[in-house]
Amino acid sequence: MASTHKVIFQPMGVRAQVEEGTSLRTAARAAGVGIDSICGEKSTCGKCKIIVQRGEFPRDEIHSSLDHLSAEGEVERVYWEKRRKGIKARGEDPDAYRLSCQAEVCGDLVVLVPEASRSVQQVVRKSASERTIEVRATMRKLYVEMHEPTLEEPLADWERLKHALAEADPLTRRPTDLALDMEEMKIDLPALRSLRAAIREGDWKVTATIRNGNQVVRVEPGYSETLVGMAVDVGTTTIAAHLCDLLTGEVLTTVAEMNPQVGYGEDIMSRMSYINEEENGLETLHKAVIDALNKLARHAARQVGLKATDIVDAVIVGNTTMHHILLGIDTRGLSQAPYVPALHDAIDVRAHEIGITAFHEGASVHLLPITASFVGADHMAAILAEAPHEQDEYWLLVDVGTNAELVLGNRERLICTSTPTGPAFEGAHVEYGMRAADGAIERIEIDPVTLLPRFKIIGDENWSDPGSGKGPIARGICGSGIIDGVAELFRVGLVGADGRFTPGLELPNLTQTENGLGYIIAWASQTNIDRDIAITQDDVRQIQLAKAPLYVAAHYLMDSFGIERPDRILLAGGFGSHIDTKHAMLLGMIPDCPLDHVYAVGNSAGDGARIALLNRDKRQEARDILKHIQRIELPAQPGFQDQFIMALHFPHMVDPYPNLDGFAPDRKESPLMKKLFGETKPTIGQS
Amino acid sequence: MASTHKVIFQPMGVRAQVEEGTSLRTAARAAGVGIDSICGEKSTCGKCKIIVQRGEFPRDEIHSSLDHLSAEGEVERVYWEKRRKGIKARGEDPDAYRLSCQAEVCGDLVVLVPEASRSVQQVVRKSASERTIEVRATMRKLYVEMHEPTLEEPLADWERLKHALAEADPLTRRPTDLALDMEEMKIDLPALRSLRAAIREGDWKVTATIRNGNQVVRVEPGYSETLVGMAVDVGTTTIAAHLCDLLTGEVLTTVAEMNPQVGYGEDIMSRMSYINEEENGLETLHKAVIDALNKLARHAARQVGLKATDIVDAVIVGNTTMHHILLGIDTRGLSQAPYVPALHDAIDVRAHEIGITAFHEGASVHLLPITASFVGADHMAAILAEAPHEQDEYWLLVDVGTNAELVLGNRERLICTSTPTGPAFEGAHVEYGMRAADGAIERIEIDPVTLLPRFKIIGDENWSDPGSGKGPIARGICGSGIIDGVAELFRVGLVGADGRFTPGLELPNLTQTENGLGYIIAWASQTNIDRDIAITQDDVRQIQLAKAPLYVAAHYLMDSFGIERPDRILLAGGFGSHIDTKHAMLLGMIPDCPLDHVYAVGNSAGDGARIALLNRDKRQEARDILKHIQRIELPAQPGFQDQFIMALHFPHMVDPYPNLDGFAPDRKESPLMKKLFGETKPTIGQS
Repeated sequence: MASTHKVIFQPMGVRAQVEEGTSLRTAARAAGVGIDSICGEKSTCGKCKIIVQRGEFPRDEIHSSLDHLSAEGEVERVYWEKRRKGIKARGEDPDAYRLSCQAEVCGDLVVLVPEASRSVQQVVRKSASERTIEVRATMRKLYVEMHEPTLEEPLADWERLKHALAEADPLTRRPTDLALDMEEMKIDLPALRSLRAAIREGDWKVTATIRNGNQVVRVEPGYSETLVGMAVDVGTTTIAAHLCDLLTGEVLTTVAEMNPQVGYGEDIMSRMSYINEEENGLETLHKAVIDALNKLARHAARQVGLKATDIVDAVIVGNTTMHHILLGIDTRGLSQAPYVPALHDAIDVRAHEIGITAFHEGASVHLLPITASFVGADHMAAILAEAPHEQDEYWLLVDVGTNAELVLGNRERLICTSTPTGPAFEGAHVEYGMRAADGAIERIEIDPVTLLPRFKIIGDENWSDPGSGKGPIARGICGSGIIDGVAELFRVGLVGADGRFTPGLELPNLTQTENGLGYIIAWASQTNIDRDIAITQDDVRQIQLAKAPLYVAAHYLMDSFGIERPDRILLAGGFGSHIDTKHAMLLGMIPDCPLDHVYAVGNSAGDGARIALLNRDKRQEARDILKHIQRIELPAQPGFQDQFIMALHFPHMVDPYPNLDGFAPDRKESPLMKKLFGETKPTIGQS
Repeated sequence: MASTHKVIFQPMGVRAQVEEGTSLRTAARAAGVGIDSICGEKSTCGKCKIIVQRGEFPRDEIHSSLDHLSAEGEVERVYWEKRRKGIKARGEDPDAYRLSCQAEVCGDLVVLVPEASRSVQQVVRKSASERTIEVRATMRKLYVEMHEPTLEEPLADWERLKHALAEADPLTRRPTDLALDMEEMKIDLPALRSLRAAIREGDWKVTATIRNGNQVVRVEPGYSETLVGMAVDVGTTTIAAHLCDLLTGEVLTTVAEMNPQVGYGEDIMSRMSYINEEENGLETLHKAVIDALNKLARHAARQVGLKATDIVDAVIVGNTTMHHILLGIDTRGLSQAPYVPALHDAIDVRAHEIGITAFHEGASVHLLPITASFVGADHMAAILAEAPHEQDEYWLLVDVGTNAELVLGNRERLICTSTPTGPAFEGAHVEYGMRAADGAIERIEIDPVTLLPRFKIIGDENWSDPGSGKGPIARGICGSGIIDGVAELFRVGLVGADGRFTPGLELPNLTQTENGLGYIIAWASQTNIDRDIAITQDDVRQIQLAKAPLYVAAHYLMDSFGIERPDRILLAGGFGSHIDTKHAMLLGMIPDCPLDHVYAVGNSAGDGARIALLNRDKRQEARDILKHIQRIELPAQPGFQDQFIMALHFPHMVDPYPNLDGFAPDRKESPLMKKLFGETKPTIGQS
């Protein structure tokens, strides 16, 4: 019997008894320690490198030495030769590095498996909660070396590759990799067409890219470890894309650009009108988004020194309209009652089939499921990212735009709904409204004593000075600014719970406009539009119309669960990240909830797309969520009209804000309030 | 408990006891009698029609009457109304016809299930053996009726269709149909794009075409039962296609045309040279064959009143070169040692992916496996059609062309090989050789007494008159003619076993040519080329060179099994169908075997393609054959060169022909023989 030695794998601290002559990688595998290898132990990829820890380890009675591994063979020597300098430059000892697939145990050892060699890769997602997501890509890359055919053994190229793959699979498979299904193994026609040339160019060594463990989509000559995918959030306004390394999960770069469909209509309703009314409207919008995706892919790849044809996998999310246009599907069902999408289920298509020809010819595109005509794949992505379905608590996830999607629930059950909010949140239909861009007023505060405002604009850190009128120069008010303004007007008592300006007010910055009374935020001298920027009576009405359905939607969801309030509120999307949560709660845009349990979670949809790109199980999880998620149609709910009208009011000022203590109650303490109402509490609104 | 009645299903003679009120189709299913239905019992397709046999059936004590079925409902009445006239015109009783899905049993019955309503369809294949092939298509068609969506239940179109399919599946499934796999059910993107319009146009009734039980490839508005496929044999010279009904197995029409690649090279070697030498050579030849397939598809469909876009499935076979060019794969591997194809395995591609855009957008093309660079998918198709692998006997299947493929074996084992035969069999390299076309001499006989010839040409039933020189007018000699001629020259003793004209001959039709002695078959006056048509010494040499490798190949195969002769010989292909088997055996082209065990089986490759088109299990069978078939490389066999040189001779005249009794022995009895050799037997040649 061969003698055995002790080997300790760090940082896991796994101890193993190893037979003399066993390779370190084999020993690690036997001990349940995963060490990477793409090349199938051919000393090519270096993924299996380890660092020998030298010296005495008295606790384990081990003396660990470089001599306790077999000497470097020629191939391994060549591998390290090229890299010694770099290791030294990092201040490390190049001699301590070995390839674990080659180095054989001949004495006791303590071995460090560096992060990069560990065969389970994880990505940490931080938002309302911190979670780790394992990298479990649908794509896998295998390097193989083949024997040349002879007259006696003229096996075909494809069968030769299959044999080599079957051999390489167990040697290179990480716990998170799909095993190859050799019975079902197929090859794409373009890959088959390239096979002969790739094999000969690579001198019988090639790297195959395999989807789902059963479909070869790409064959490259020689060794290659480039395996990248793209996660895309196609928003109505902006398209954002993460280029990701599918081996490590790393985001290589993030790029974004305006959705060129904006030229054919600002919002989804006008895009759908364009499709209904213009000849080839669908083709035009489809081509616009596809062109943009091709451009983004090339741009992103160039930034990191790759080619867009290196992209072999993608997950794309978007609202249902964006989803349908992307696939070239008529949106008529979405714009006409009863508002039926073409499909709910996730769908996989070939990138080239829908025109994304910048990607590799064998690249796939996965589109996440859509719940309804107005609850799209982007919302499903947000659910994947925030994971309310994994919680014990009740979480409310809200994505606010011109349309709002809400989902409430926990691991037992999820219920979602959607509602149009009107365009006021995006600055439209507001007299001085504008997009969230440089020069837009995004923050407003009103002094409860002087009742005068100050503001902050996007692109400038400074607040305006209500006294001198100095400070930033404004162009208009964006969505979060208008919410701030209206909430402050209400907070200090200038506007009542019914949304009307309090009668009998006299203030220097009150003015009569075409749209009713106006409260000037910025004097003409503080703007570059040469006019006073004010919030008018009509603007307040617009905000009431926009926020009421949100309030109603959240309350119907809470009623479905029989709960008073959610445990956490997650505001997703760009708008959700910008609004002041105190103000949003004050206006009744979101239900009451401890303020420190309200999170602006940023671009959840984009993160969800990335999660589904990196982890194939999450794609199935989304399909499972689709199966179980319930949906309520607000207009079909009993008493909906009454609820909506009630919700147009702003909530009670005092009692209903246990979580706004010291902020909302300002109102009753304000000099104006006292003057107007004495100690009487306003009673309009709902409880 | 409900009362029960006796029902007898004819012609099966199945007896059943049926509860009152059960539909006949349900009763039949319970009794194991399959009755068709495409429409899911909606009275639309009429596939389930049966004929009530009226009167007394004393043996079974049954009185069968129309009244023993429930009365026709409105929908069934409408169905028959339109058809009564036609039934009457055929001399049948229209009242006896009912739809078994609607008619409910309320008394004893004898019912005839007509052939067309039986749910297992078979196709009979006759050749060396007669076999029936069940129709088990990969494609299936289901008619479904859906509910319109509402605001309360706005389910997507695709999910709505899936629900309807799940319901229709058990009602319409024949025993030979694939059950639907609802978990895995997917839809092609083009079908998804067409879904909304098809559903609305069909007023919530559509017919879906489903591949492999899990992929919707086409959705048509309303009811449709057109389900067709195409089986194609892409020959080097001719492309032949069968348009088939995938429900019944019927061949709707067969069309053929010249392979337009002929313009770039007559044979596969010159085509491969074209690819190697010309810029875009592969693309040119690929496009040529694809264009021809598109044209054939449209032509065939038009002939039977269909559209080529009704074609949803196809099986294409061809030799390895044709196969690769069809797929757009470089043929360099096939033309250069070690002669490696790109793949062996069967492959499924989308028709549109390889340019066959005449077919439906969702159509698939299946290509059968290829055994080797020179044993292609056509040979695999021939094996499927002739089924040597299902026999207890040893069968030898030979497909002769400029390349010959041979397979020998039985259910235990198959061994195949291939060999070039040279172009003489196709009339090339023969002084007066020509293709098998009108005017070609295809039959030659030589009178053993006068030693003068007579001949028959293609396109004329009459033999020439050797005395008067009258009769048909020849243009040249085709492959089967040259074989006849050389065999007869040998049979009557004008040519020896070594292939030399016997010395010292004096005959009026012997002439000296540039290519050695010539034996005139047709005088100039019997031709339209104004010259005598002769078989020259060189022509005999060409036939020797062409037949020797065939002889060697067959003998190495027999040696591998240790057998003296095959039990049956099957000659496949156009050439194999035309040659005179006696003459072929006399020359040693095929091994000795009882003459009535030698079959010309015609276009086995085309039939094999049709079998694989109609029966999905046969596609798997071909893959199984591929796994087990062995191949021998003739040049690698011990003693190959010697064997080849020996085989250039014609076989012994007397002993080796136990099966040519009364034909071959003519020679020794002939006056010429007696004069030349007395009673001496010739000894040159091999035993």
